[in-house]
Amino acid sequence: MKKIKGLQCVLCGKIYSENEVEYNCPECGNEGILDVLYDYEFIKKDFSIKSNDNTLFRYLDILPVLNKNVTFQTGMTPIYKNKTLKKELGFNIYIKDDGRNPTASLKDRASAIAVSKAIEKKQKIIAAASTGNAASSLAGNAANVGIPTVIFVPKTAPVAKIAQLLVFGAKVFTVNGTYDQAYEICIKASEEFGWYNRNCAYNPYLVEGKKTVVWEIMESLHFNIPDYIAVSVGDGCIISSIYKGLYDMKMLGFIDKFPKLIAVQSENCSPIVNAHKTGKFEPVEPNTIADSISVGIPRNRVKALKALKETNGIAVSVSDDNILDSIKFLARKTGVFGEPAGVTSIAGIRKLKEEGFFKKDDVVVSIITGNGLKDIQSAIKACGKPIEISSDINSVINEIKKEIF
Amino acid sequence: MKKIKGLQCVLCGKIYSENEVEYNCPECGNEGILDVLYDYEFIKKDFSIKSNDNTLFRYLDILPVLNKNVTFQTGMTPIYKNKTLKKELGFNIYIKDDGRNPTASLKDRASAIAVSKAIEKKQKIIAAASTGNAASSLAGNAANVGIPTVIFVPKTAPVAKIAQLLVFGAKVFTVNGTYDQAYEICIKASEEFGWYNRNCAYNPYLVEGKKTVVWEIMESLHFNIPDYIAVSVGDGCIISSIYKGLYDMKMLGFIDKFPKLIAVQSENCSPIVNAHKTGKFEPVEPNTIADSISVGIPRNRVKALKALKETNGIAVSVSDDNILDSIKFLARKTGVFGEPAGVTSIAGIRKLKEEGFFKKDDVVVSIITGNGLKDIQSAIKACGKPIEISSDINSVINEIKKEIF
Repeated sequence: MKKIKGLQCVLCGKIYSENEVEYNCPECGNEGILDVLYDYEFIKKDFSIKSNDNTLFRYLDILPVLNKNVTFQTGMTPIYKNKTLKKELGFNIYIKDDGRNPTASLKDRASAIAVSKAIEKKQKIIAAASTGNAASSLAGNAANVGIPTVIFVPKTAPVAKIAQLLVFGAKVFTVNGTYDQAYEICIKASEEFGWYNRNCAYNPYLVEGKKTVVWEIMESLHFNIPDYIAVSVGDGCIISSIYKGLYDMKMLGFIDKFPKLIAVQSENCSPIVNAHKTGKFEPVEPNTIADSISVGIPRNRVKALKALKETNGIAVSVSDDNILDSIKFLARKTGVFGEPAGVTSIAGIRKLKEEGFFKKDDVVVSIITGNGLKDIQSAIKACGKPIEISSDINSVINEIKKEIF
Repeated sequence: MKKIKGLQCVLCGKIYSENEVEYNCPECGNEGILDVLYDYEFIKKDFSIKSNDNTLFRYLDILPVLNKNVTFQTGMTPIYKNKTLKKELGFNIYIKDDGRNPTASLKDRASAIAVSKAIEKKQKIIAAASTGNAASSLAGNAANVGIPTVIFVPKTAPVAKIAQLLVFGAKVFTVNGTYDQAYEICIKASEEFGWYNRNCAYNPYLVEGKKTVVWEIMESLHFNIPDYIAVSVGDGCIISSIYKGLYDMKMLGFIDKFPKLIAVQSENCSPIVNAHKTGKFEPVEPNTIADSISVGIPRNRVKALKALKETNGIAVSVSDDNILDSIKFLARKTGVFGEPAGVTSIAGIRKLKEEGFFKKDDVVVSIITGNGLKDIQSAIKACGKPIEISSDINSVINEIKKEIF
């Protein structure tokens, strides 16, 4: 399509035409992830945000699909400026609640593009490996248009995410191993059986769907540049997509500089934080309660580290206790209930605040990547139990009084 | 406020001024639920839908609050016209996915008004009894504005709903009894301790919030009248609110007749279906998997039965097996994942279709009242289990082949 110049390998820099390759750089292999290069001069001529479209396809002019061919209502999630939170933290903070997407995570943005692309390419079956959310979002989005899906998840994925998959009719394989192993199996099986692959660090078009989250943030801020945008990091795809969206905006003249990105990981799985610090990537054994970012080998690390570098960003790791407490903190101050990885950005912001990092005029955006209903067990760990009372109307007032006063 | 003429008792017909009563008719007691009477002639003069407001407050002119004083993004949930579903069912069907509200159920619409009203009335604490959703929505909406909540739920409420309550910081009492007992306890405790009461069949303003669902449906259909609107029925508040919204539209000149309402209940708890058939209400022992409509004594039965009568509607009961199967059916055809009570309207539509009830040109709207993530156990019951495979890349292709081909 005219708006796309080609697909460029993040490792060797070679540029391919759209029809030449499907996924990554044939010369560099699976590590050679491709980046969609747009013809910004061409796009600029006729660019508009389709403000009547209340989905992420309002940014169709800067998406790698020809037409809007799906009707699922993905994107255009709320962004809140919350007074209580501002008071508590001491600077300006916006909460972008992406758990409000159709299957309750930001991953729906990528799946919307995966499904659109599969329709354009006349693909019959879509496959994905996932810690849970990418898969459930693919299964839901694909069910909406009647495309079958095959899913590989680690056996340890939260039960709610597996239930979503089954409910949406996906063929679900639970791998007796890690996400990293599920990922390898998915790539091999897709090749073997000819399935369209939705893995975000593999299929170059998916990051393009995810970038709509920052287009929405910036549109709602009237393209006034915040100081920081904080997000949790697993495979590194979301943070890469945020940089990509900001890069689009710069090339199209919407902004003239970048906000600093804040990458947040769990202390129990922080390969990107480590690599950003040391300049050298080393795989880790993942062991965090935040299952969506429990990724020992972040596939999109090259793009993720570039996003940090280009925006003069920072990377921070937080304890799992801070993550659990941040579920409660965010829910009680704002009414937004996030899953562990969903609130990890808040945990990072709270840690940095403790260290005196922010100034009082700073404007900070926190992206909540998934809904707390996807992982009830973690929420319960964070919150304790209700108070049991009898049903006897005569004695119950005294029981209540004891607990309230 | 000028747009409200008064509050009328559904039993004795007496009209009170707004400041004269807080909840129900002093003469008829708790059964004397009040209905908000609008001054439609006054409202008509300056009525507009605030089309820039992407929340239910776009209908502020016909809501019982003076101003929009909350910012939580409630309402304006998607409505889907799905081709697969049309093919499957044989008539035109729209799915209104109200599980996309902030705390994942239609109840957020009532809670948005409860919180607004509490702010207007300078109330310090809000209380509610609930099968689960009304409570979690109140807790979330109130957390968003910093008002404490006290909640009474039956001990048997699904764990996800209780987790939401705790996460939002509500004081949660689980009653060792039924919803009906929790309801009585809540009313007594609210009187005793001076809390503002959010029970929808008690506080006359809450039905007014819920009615926005039908305003949205009708606005998205450009006020073309569908043949049927189907919804599950527990306490009877939602169906009453749908009638109220339609009545507003008729009085304001948007429509000239009513679509027929279809009330759907579980066979294991169908007091409204029974009363509609026999003309006589009898309490039942609730025993359905659809916890949100597991209500043996529907508090808003007078309004609910009136809604059916005035719209020439019908009432139908369905098996719990049909409800469970409809979770799967809807999710696989549309990507919309509902909780049991959420898809009960679909179960009713499917039953009526089997009986040859619908004509092929009929336009039917089904309201999905709550998200499936609120009750994962029911979804798992409906869907079975994933297929476990090893992580050995060399043997796994054969394991997959066995399952797929």
